[in-house]
Amino acid sequence: MADPPLAPSLLHALTQLLGPRGLLTAAEDIAPHLTDWRNLYCGATPCVIRPGSTEELARAVTLCAAAGVAMVPQGGNTSMVGGATPDESGRQVVVSLARLNRIRAIDPVDMTMTAEAGVVLKAAQNAAAEAGCLFPLSLGAEGSATIGGVLSTNAGGNTTVRYGNARELMLGLEAVLPDGGIWHGLRRLRKDNTGYALRHLFVGAEGTLGFITAASLRMFPRARDTALAFCAVADEAAALALFRRFRDRDESAVRAFEYMSGLGVDFAVKHIEGITLPVATRADHYVLVDLASSRPDAGLREMAESVLFEAMQEGEVLDAVLAESEAQAQKMWRIREEHPEAQKREGASVKNDVSVPVSKVPELIRRCSAALVALIPGSRPVPFGHIGDGNIHMNLEQPEDMEGAAFLARSHGIMDCVNEIVRDLDGSFSAEHGIGRLKTDMMESWRGGAELGAMRAIKAALDPKGLMNPGKVFP
Amino acid sequence: MADPPLAPSLLHALTQLLGPRGLLTAAEDIAPHLTDWRNLYCGATPCVIRPGSTEELARAVTLCAAAGVAMVPQGGNTSMVGGATPDESGRQVVVSLARLNRIRAIDPVDMTMTAEAGVVLKAAQNAAAEAGCLFPLSLGAEGSATIGGVLSTNAGGNTTVRYGNARELMLGLEAVLPDGGIWHGLRRLRKDNTGYALRHLFVGAEGTLGFITAASLRMFPRARDTALAFCAVADEAAALALFRRFRDRDESAVRAFEYMSGLGVDFAVKHIEGITLPVATRADHYVLVDLASSRPDAGLREMAESVLFEAMQEGEVLDAVLAESEAQAQKMWRIREEHPEAQKREGASVKNDVSVPVSKVPELIRRCSAALVALIPGSRPVPFGHIGDGNIHMNLEQPEDMEGAAFLARSHGIMDCVNEIVRDLDGSFSAEHGIGRLKTDMMESWRGGAELGAMRAIKAALDPKGLMNPGKVFP
Repeated sequence: MADPPLAPSLLHALTQLLGPRGLLTAAEDIAPHLTDWRNLYCGATPCVIRPGSTEELARAVTLCAAAGVAMVPQGGNTSMVGGATPDESGRQVVVSLARLNRIRAIDPVDMTMTAEAGVVLKAAQNAAAEAGCLFPLSLGAEGSATIGGVLSTNAGGNTTVRYGNARELMLGLEAVLPDGGIWHGLRRLRKDNTGYALRHLFVGAEGTLGFITAASLRMFPRARDTALAFCAVADEAAALALFRRFRDRDESAVRAFEYMSGLGVDFAVKHIEGITLPVATRADHYVLVDLASSRPDAGLREMAESVLFEAMQEGEVLDAVLAESEAQAQKMWRIREEHPEAQKREGASVKNDVSVPVSKVPELIRRCSAALVALIPGSRPVPFGHIGDGNIHMNLEQPEDMEGAAFLARSHGIMDCVNEIVRDLDGSFSAEHGIGRLKTDMMESWRGGAELGAMRAIKAALDPKGLMNPGKVFP
Repeated sequence: MADPPLAPSLLHALTQLLGPRGLLTAAEDIAPHLTDWRNLYCGATPCVIRPGSTEELARAVTLCAAAGVAMVPQGGNTSMVGGATPDESGRQVVVSLARLNRIRAIDPVDMTMTAEAGVVLKAAQNAAAEAGCLFPLSLGAEGSATIGGVLSTNAGGNTTVRYGNARELMLGLEAVLPDGGIWHGLRRLRKDNTGYALRHLFVGAEGTLGFITAASLRMFPRARDTALAFCAVADEAAALALFRRFRDRDESAVRAFEYMSGLGVDFAVKHIEGITLPVATRADHYVLVDLASSRPDAGLREMAESVLFEAMQEGEVLDAVLAESEAQAQKMWRIREEHPEAQKREGASVKNDVSVPVSKVPELIRRCSAALVALIPGSRPVPFGHIGDGNIHMNLEQPEDMEGAAFLARSHGIMDCVNEIVRDLDGSFSAEHGIGRLKTDMMESWRGGAELGAMRAIKAALDPKGLMNPGKVFP
């Protein structure tokens, strides 16, 4: 008979330490923690640890580390690459940070917030707003994703073009290291040059170096003037040209700049209730231009009108509508935000979260679209995303006359096809979703040699027993 | 007889590899590389290696590593903490990156520049300007400091409040690792989540993990509207209140916000030719407000007038002058930039480059000033710096009736006095200058425990022989 996944003595010690709220062992309680957001993997675990404080987590980690038990950190469980769920061995313990959900401090003078790992992103946004400020990180899963998760994956989203990724919004961290030690690094300074930037190493490490338990975050003044335009544009190059026009006019006002294909908008109109096309005529390419300023008299609407007028005269913009109200703005943003859901309802689809230098986005979209249709005749490219920061979701929808499963069986060929072009354009095979479990096999060919060697050396130095989120990031 | 500092076979191999331009051994050629900018230390070296390419550097590092010879990277040799000069043993080889001085690429669409380590900061600024863009990093030593140096030390300067430190302007790196391997990481993507953020580990590592040989850097649209105000303010709290007024009005327009004490401005007027007080009446506290926007119709002058009028009505601002021309603006900035030189001419002074959360700057200045005068009666605090990012140079000028050497002998007591207050205010003992050799003894008490332990583990993992810039950063 095989060993039990956890030694009875360890389970007993964890029960004593954590109590019934802090340790889930019943199958029905564990189940939601085993499957990733996209249903790519279904793992197993003997228990889910839910510590109520950083100190409690540190003690639990010390127990697990002493027993040589692997640990899988989990936040909102919204990973797009299977980064937060255990493998199938049944020997990896899931550690949910959900109960560390306090906002410890918020300071509108310093423009900083100290939030625990389990704080949901939306709650952090709301807390900033209540303090009269803005926490700008914004992404589709913001109602479930947590601060610990968005930092561990260096999440991006819509506002990277203006405010950067999660990394750039982080000033300090508190973390529990793989040996159970606590690192108290919750500084909230713009300038602090005192040794290696550990905080930047933990951000984006996907839980393979330890547990982020809290973070000090930057806030910004809230927007007091905004403008939102939904535009039909001539082609991919016109979308980029329009971005450059707005950036040149007022770089600091461009809060988001999103590209959508004609087909992607068709799917949203077809499948999502309440969504209609804001412009009069259907086009093959659209962009959403989101402008914001803390200055009440910034005159963004007039600026947008002036830039759009110029772009229309040049033939770049075919038609454009400015939102007349907050309700209308939300409706326009929904067209973009419902893209993943609309694609799901249309059938099976394969996601490609890639990035290239901004100047190469039009070439990326054109070349990938052509190559994918050549690879699978009848398949339907649905590129969309953050043209302003070079991050396009180069997704592919199944052919109408193909079985979904047969299409998904070709996922790796589809990803390889896109990645080959991305590599040729000096891009990245994972822009904002990270590596998780899904893309570990790409690491060797993209990051192999000195870079992956250094990463392995750091991993071995900080987690010598290899207990933190094994099977993720590294091939 | 002791061993020679370098084995003849190694010296021969380096000569063969590097040629006469690439290897300095004559005493007069070596001398400029031995003493730091502030004349705190004077070291010794058997030779200065000056590679002409990344590949040449890699081969030289391979030779030195095989021979167990320690290497000290040097850029413009403008370290404020003795970070770029060899120790007194005569066994550390200086490696100057000065000949790696090409700008490899510049792209105004992507807003990126790829510059080699030896490019002088001012040259990088100029190259960006010629491409119609802005490279915003700006600091006193910009005519000598190099890209490799400002990245290795994560230099800050005047524009951090708007654009961040050097770290935030960096998208990718090329580096030679301690074993001579080359890491090709010159990506220029805003989003790239593919494993650990090695580039952030090298930035601020002060050359203890390897050699940065080139970097891809972010550029920004150039300013098309500016305004500069020199203001006499009521006290330290009024300086902060004025910063908040401008930030709240238009956060993205505040390019720099600098504090100066009355005494500091007195010294500049007294010692520096051509400097006069821009306002009618002498005050105890001044600020310089530098506004800039890429938008030509931003109306920054009117905005500044409106904010200053409000602040005058509240008694925060006593008097203010707006620059009427570029020449006048440069003259106002000179008052701030000549502070270090004016302090030097006034006598001996001790520098304290510290930071606190922005809200605590007034308390920092008041408490430190009082404590320093109590510590050394007659000594003259001359705080100045970047109030907008919480970084104050809490410098202390010698008493008029004291010997300079006797005053400098008390340097460590002065630094301890300031640091005690900084610690109480949740600040940092080194804001933008780094650790170098000067502050290694502070690392244990400020960063000891889990944090310094993790740093040591990383250092040992990436530089197991301890050959990269030994004696720096770590106690």
